[in-house]
Amino acid sequence: MNTEKKKLVVIALGGNAIKQAHEKGTAEEQFKNVEITCEQLVKMNAMGYKLIITHGNGPQAGNLLIQQEEGKNIVPPQPLDVVGAMTQGQIGYMFQNTLQNYFMQKGKDIPITAVITQVLVKEDDPDFKDPSKPVGPFYTEVEAKELEKAKGYIVKKVKPNSDKPWRRVVPSPEPYGIVESNCIKALVDARAIVIASGGGGIPVMKNNDGTLSGLEAVIDKDKAGNKLAQEVKADIFLVLTDVENAKINFGEQNEQALGNITVEEAEKYLQEGHFLAGSMGPKVTAAIRFVKAGGEKSIITSLANAADALNGKTGTIIVK
Amino acid sequence: MNTEKKKLVVIALGGNAIKQAHEKGTAEEQFKNVEITCEQLVKMNAMGYKLIITHGNGPQAGNLLIQQEEGKNIVPPQPLDVVGAMTQGQIGYMFQNTLQNYFMQKGKDIPITAVITQVLVKEDDPDFKDPSKPVGPFYTEVEAKELEKAKGYIVKKVKPNSDKPWRRVVPSPEPYGIVESNCIKALVDARAIVIASGGGGIPVMKNNDGTLSGLEAVIDKDKAGNKLAQEVKADIFLVLTDVENAKINFGEQNEQALGNITVEEAEKYLQEGHFLAGSMGPKVTAAIRFVKAGGEKSIITSLANAADALNGKTGTIIVK
Repeated sequence: MNTEKKKLVVIALGGNAIKQAHEKGTAEEQFKNVEITCEQLVKMNAMGYKLIITHGNGPQAGNLLIQQEEGKNIVPPQPLDVVGAMTQGQIGYMFQNTLQNYFMQKGKDIPITAVITQVLVKEDDPDFKDPSKPVGPFYTEVEAKELEKAKGYIVKKVKPNSDKPWRRVVPSPEPYGIVESNCIKALVDARAIVIASGGGGIPVMKNNDGTLSGLEAVIDKDKAGNKLAQEVKADIFLVLTDVENAKINFGEQNEQALGNITVEEAEKYLQEGHFLAGSMGPKVTAAIRFVKAGGEKSIITSLANAADALNGKTGTIIVK
Repeated sequence: MNTEKKKLVVIALGGNAIKQAHEKGTAEEQFKNVEITCEQLVKMNAMGYKLIITHGNGPQAGNLLIQQEEGKNIVPPQPLDVVGAMTQGQIGYMFQNTLQNYFMQKGKDIPITAVITQVLVKEDDPDFKDPSKPVGPFYTEVEAKELEKAKGYIVKKVKPNSDKPWRRVVPSPEPYGIVESNCIKALVDARAIVIASGGGGIPVMKNNDGTLSGLEAVIDKDKAGNKLAQEVKADIFLVLTDVENAKINFGEQNEQALGNITVEEAEKYLQEGHFLAGSMGPKVTAAIRFVKAGGEKSIITSLANAADALNGKTGTIIVK
């Protein structure tokens, strides 16, 4: 699919690639996690793959929303699209700096950059009617109802037995296009490693006159990653998470790790409800979509097993 | 200097291109200012120029530092290099979205993106010994002294007759290289409009092993813009500010607006102290450096006069 023989991999990184759940999110902690992640990315580069990296931004956006909330009497909070753009800059910088440093130490001069990326969503997406994605700080009922009134937030009780059980929920619509895919392609053609579509991309919607407006929404990063992989005509879509394989009959006696499977098998397992909705489900969905759109293969595995999975030795590998 | 006949202009935008001094900095306000700015950028594109855009980030970084301060008991504040990266994402998004919208309305499909950009500074820069650039919130003497002790901040009394006269000061070292210039060049070669080196770039310094580490510092955006213009071999360096021309004998009877001048004349005026240190001074310095490094011309003018200045009809134009 590429002009060169090197294969192009789009890698969707899991949350723990940047911030571990128990950490507060200092720059030091995040740089350290990014370093561990980049060690594996450098391996993939050495194996001869061209790389595009995408990543989540949940904890970083969450922290920024809290800071905005705390400072709201002095400084106006920015909406979610702008918050997404800010975390793309933050995380993109950490990855490009760290990757560059690895290559410099090996005497390799590879252009690397993060590209601010907008992702198109559709007005008639059902998630706009019933928003499902909790974001930002937790609130008491009184605070939540006030925000509902003052700002038009949709709030839901998401943590029943807590002092602050309420949280804002926003739509998580399906991605259907990557606005900057031409720029990302041009960089890959110039042999660059690109960090793109961070946090699932900045959600934008088409107005009647064809212009694009940012939205208070959050796009699933694996689904957006698949869209990106399709638009740049990647060969492989690699979804990294915290387990070596996707599993069927999870937690039961007949639990089984999935190795090489076909799209049809993956679709069957998905329909049978083997994968958790907020977790493995969207990853398998994104992986299926990529292969059905003509991609060579999708892989779901953990960071530590990524290189082996590219060599076909482990991971859940979905092919036609 | 370019493979095509179209000339490449690096445009350094002044602070009011994004946020007016009297504004709080809501997303709506900033998008509105960016729209006014982009109208002029679209004109320059229509005149046949290839564009790279760079911009300041003072008010946006300032707001984010305040939010971080207010939320510091819940969420760890990010250091200045990360704050710089976040504002590059924020402002980059606003420009790329707005520019894309203008072109879409004209039926033009031009790739546009913001590139997260690091800028090299040198360890022996004198500004590291005596930091000069105030950043972030204002403090009382007690607060300032506490921060000095707890965080090693250097604080200075910058607003004598105020409740909170103290402020953190950080180094503002000279830029000597743009880490991502290859990526920016590749995008321009692919006919893209690029937003880069926002806020003067993320300051990084070379360690002994050749790796780069981010710093708590702020680089002058016009000086970084000149460096970028040199590295991408731009033809024209256009510095936009709030006045139509640089002036000599400013505020005196023999005040004179500068039109077409040579580098030698500009250097003479600079040495004679005609330009304010924190204001027109660094702009003229950056403009001189660009022409001395081989650039065709530097222009200093206001946003509204930018197109006319490119046609040679107004502005301060510095040539060899």
